[in-house]
Amino acid sequence: MDSLLETGLPGTPDFDTYAIVADLTAARCDGVLVELDWSDGRRSRFHALWLRDNCAGPESLNDVTREQTTSPLQLSADVRAEAVWVDAAGALNLRWAGEDFVSRFHPGWLRHHDFANQDNEDPGAPPLHLWDAEEMPEPATFDGGDILNDDTVLEAWLSAFARYGIARLTGVAAEDGMITRVGERLGTLRVSNFGILFDVKSKIDADSNAFTALELEPHTDLGTREYLPGLQFLHCLRNTAGGGRAVMVDGYRVAEAIRAERPDVFRALCEIHWTWTNRHADSDYRWRAPILSLHPDGGYREIRATYFLRGPSPLPDGRLEEAYESMRVLYTYLHDPRYRMVFPYAPGDLVGFDNRRILHAREAFDPDHGERWLQGCYLERDELASRLRILDRKRRAAAQNG
Amino acid sequence: MDSLLETGLPGTPDFDTYAIVADLTAARCDGVLVELDWSDGRRSRFHALWLRDNCAGPESLNDVTREQTTSPLQLSADVRAEAVWVDAAGALNLRWAGEDFVSRFHPGWLRHHDFANQDNEDPGAPPLHLWDAEEMPEPATFDGGDILNDDTVLEAWLSAFARYGIARLTGVAAEDGMITRVGERLGTLRVSNFGILFDVKSKIDADSNAFTALELEPHTDLGTREYLPGLQFLHCLRNTAGGGRAVMVDGYRVAEAIRAERPDVFRALCEIHWTWTNRHADSDYRWRAPILSLHPDGGYREIRATYFLRGPSPLPDGRLEEAYESMRVLYTYLHDPRYRMVFPYAPGDLVGFDNRRILHAREAFDPDHGERWLQGCYLERDELASRLRILDRKRRAAAQNG
Repeated sequence: MDSLLETGLPGTPDFDTYAIVADLTAARCDGVLVELDWSDGRRSRFHALWLRDNCAGPESLNDVTREQTTSPLQLSADVRAEAVWVDAAGALNLRWAGEDFVSRFHPGWLRHHDFANQDNEDPGAPPLHLWDAEEMPEPATFDGGDILNDDTVLEAWLSAFARYGIARLTGVAAEDGMITRVGERLGTLRVSNFGILFDVKSKIDADSNAFTALELEPHTDLGTREYLPGLQFLHCLRNTAGGGRAVMVDGYRVAEAIRAERPDVFRALCEIHWTWTNRHADSDYRWRAPILSLHPDGGYREIRATYFLRGPSPLPDGRLEEAYESMRVLYTYLHDPRYRMVFPYAPGDLVGFDNRRILHAREAFDPDHGERWLQGCYLERDELASRLRILDRKRRAAAQNG
Repeated sequence: MDSLLETGLPGTPDFDTYAIVADLTAARCDGVLVELDWSDGRRSRFHALWLRDNCAGPESLNDVTREQTTSPLQLSADVRAEAVWVDAAGALNLRWAGEDFVSRFHPGWLRHHDFANQDNEDPGAPPLHLWDAEEMPEPATFDGGDILNDDTVLEAWLSAFARYGIARLTGVAAEDGMITRVGERLGTLRVSNFGILFDVKSKIDADSNAFTALELEPHTDLGTREYLPGLQFLHCLRNTAGGGRAVMVDGYRVAEAIRAERPDVFRALCEIHWTWTNRHADSDYRWRAPILSLHPDGGYREIRATYFLRGPSPLPDGRLEEAYESMRVLYTYLHDPRYRMVFPYAPGDLVGFDNRRILHAREAFDPDHGERWLQGCYLERDELASRLRILDRKRRAAAQNG
C-alpha cells in the first residue's frame, strides 16, 4: 500500500496488486461509453454504469470491509459520465452527472478488467489436463516434509492438484490429526456426519463399507448429498497390512472416452436421475441426480457415483434397462487398466484428489496380518481456488515490491 | 426389529419401518417382469433387474453398513427371475436364474416402492408454500424453551421451516454458543471462513458489512461460493440498541411476481452470469452464476444475491444495461412493503431461514446507545430434510410398535 500511496494512484476495490503494464494516454466519453487509449496502442472501452458499479471510492465501498455500499437501486440507466481525464499520477478520473464527486480508477486495475481485450487466466482455475494411467502412472508428487510452512511447495502441489485432479505429498509427518492441519493450509474443512476427519481402518461396527477391509470399486464419496464434497485428502499413518493399494481413475477422461465411443451411454449418464440414499439409524440423506453433470457451457461439473448407495430409484418410463446398462458400461471402463492409476500407500503419503472428478477405489486388504490406517478429510473446490489465487497474489506483490 | 423377526418377514435394505397396508395375494413372472397382486385389488409390476439391485439379502448388502456390495457389473441385462412366490409370512420370494440363492422382499417395502402406483410424499421435502408479507406478517413461531429435548416441537418447527423457508423459536436460552447446539439437532454444521458460529455485532475491524451497524439490503449470504449455504440460523442474545429490526423476503415469491409481470427481467435474472467476489487479505473466493437458478424441472433451485459482493463482472456482449436493469428491478420488488416481513429480535428468539430462498436484511441500528448481539451459523438443506425424515420415521415406528 505504501508504494501505491507514494505514486499518488488510487486504491483498488480489492486487496490485490495490479502491475502497470502500459500508461493511459487519453480518455474520452460520450456520457455512456468511456474510451481509453494506452501507451502501447491498445484501446479499451468501459460502460459508465459498469464503472459506477465498480468504483473503489468511499462513495461506493466500505473502506474497511471493501464491500459495496451502493444499492443496486442506485445503478440506474441514467448514470452518466460528465467528464473524464487522466491525471498526473496516471489514473482515470471520472466526474458523474448529478453526483458531486469524482471517481478515480487505477490504470493497472482497469487494464486487467478490460475483458474485451483479454481473458486473464484465473490462477484458481487452470485448464484441466485429463489423463489415463498410461500417460500418468502415478500422481505428481512433491516433498511434503515442510508443507505447513513452505508456500512454494504448497503452490506447486495445489497447482498440479487443480490441473490433474490429483497430486501427492510424501514425507508428511505421520501424526494423528496432521491431515486437518494440511487441509487448513487451503482453508475451511468440510465437516460431514463422519466428523472433521475420518479414520479409514477396518472396524467392527462399520457405518460405511469404507471402514471394512473389503475391496471398494471406483466411487465418489457422499453422493447422497446435494453438495458433493469437492476435495478429499487421504493421509497414510501406518501400513503393514497386505493389499489395500489405491486405485484412482480420472472420471472426466473416462467420460470423454464414453462420449466418443458410446454417445448413447454418455447421454444416459447425463440424463437419467438416480436416487442416492444413505442408510443410517440417525440420518437419512437422499439426493436425486444423474451420474454425470455438465456446466451450461458443456464443461464437466461432476461425476456422482457412490455405487454402494444406490437407492430404490424411480427410473424414467421405458429407460430402466438403458439406465442399468449405462452404469454397467461406465464400470466396465472404470475397470479397464488403461484408466486405473494404482499405487501403494506408505506412511507419510498424503494424496489430495477432486472427489467430483476422480473416482477412488482400493484393493481388498488383510486386516488380520498387519495394520492399515489412513485419515481423511474433505474441503470444497472453492478453498483450492482461493488459496491458489492468494499464493499467486502474494508472489506478484513480492515481485512488485522487491 | 424383534417384531419383524417374530413375523418371519425379511429385513429391508434400510433402517426404516414399513407398514403392511395390504397383503400380497399372488406373484407371477415372465423372467423380466414380476407382477404382484394385492389384497385390496392393486396390481404392481417390478423389473427383475431393479429387484436384483434392491435386494436386501446378504448376497447384495453388507448387513452392518446396509450398503450395497453388488457391483454395477453384476446388474447385467441377463438377470432373470426363474420363479416367484409368496411365502407363509407374506413375503415375495424370488429365485434367480443362474444364481444359487433366493431373495425375499418385505411386502410393506415393495408396496412403498411401487412408484408407478403412488408417489409417497417425502417428509424431507414438503411442497413449498410461497408467501408475501400480507399473508404472513411474521414467521410461524414455536416455543423453543425445551428445543434441545423436545422432538415434537422440533418436528413442527422444521416442518414449517421447510414449507415457508423460515420459522422462529422463542424462549431459546440466550447463551453464548446455544445456536450450535440447536443446529446440531438437525445435523452437521457448515463451517465457513467466519467460523463455526459468527457473532453479528458492530465491530471496529469488520471483515463484512454484516459486522457494522449499517443498514443491510435483502441479500443471501456467501454468494461467492459455488455451494451457497442452504440454511442460516440467527439467535438473539441481547438487544437494547435502537433499530436493527429483521427484514425477510421470500425470494421465490418475488421471482414468481417478476415472472408474471416482467418476463424479460425474469429471463435476464436466470441467464446473465455475474461474478461474485469476496475481498479479504487471505482469501479470494469467486463464483460466476446467475442471480436466479432453476432445477431442470423448472422448480426454484436458488437465488444468489449477495449485492455487496458484486465483482467486476464480464457481462455478455450487448446485455450490460439489461443486466443492471434486471438487478435494479429485483431490488425494487425487494423494497416493496408487500413482500417485506419485518419484525424485531428479542433475546431468546431464534430464526431459521433458507439462505437460498429467503433474502434477509436489517434496518440500521444505533451501536452507541445499547447493545445488539446475534449469533449465527449455517447448515445445508440436506440436514433439514434428513432430520425431518428421521423424526417421521421414529414417529411411525413408535406408532407401529405401540
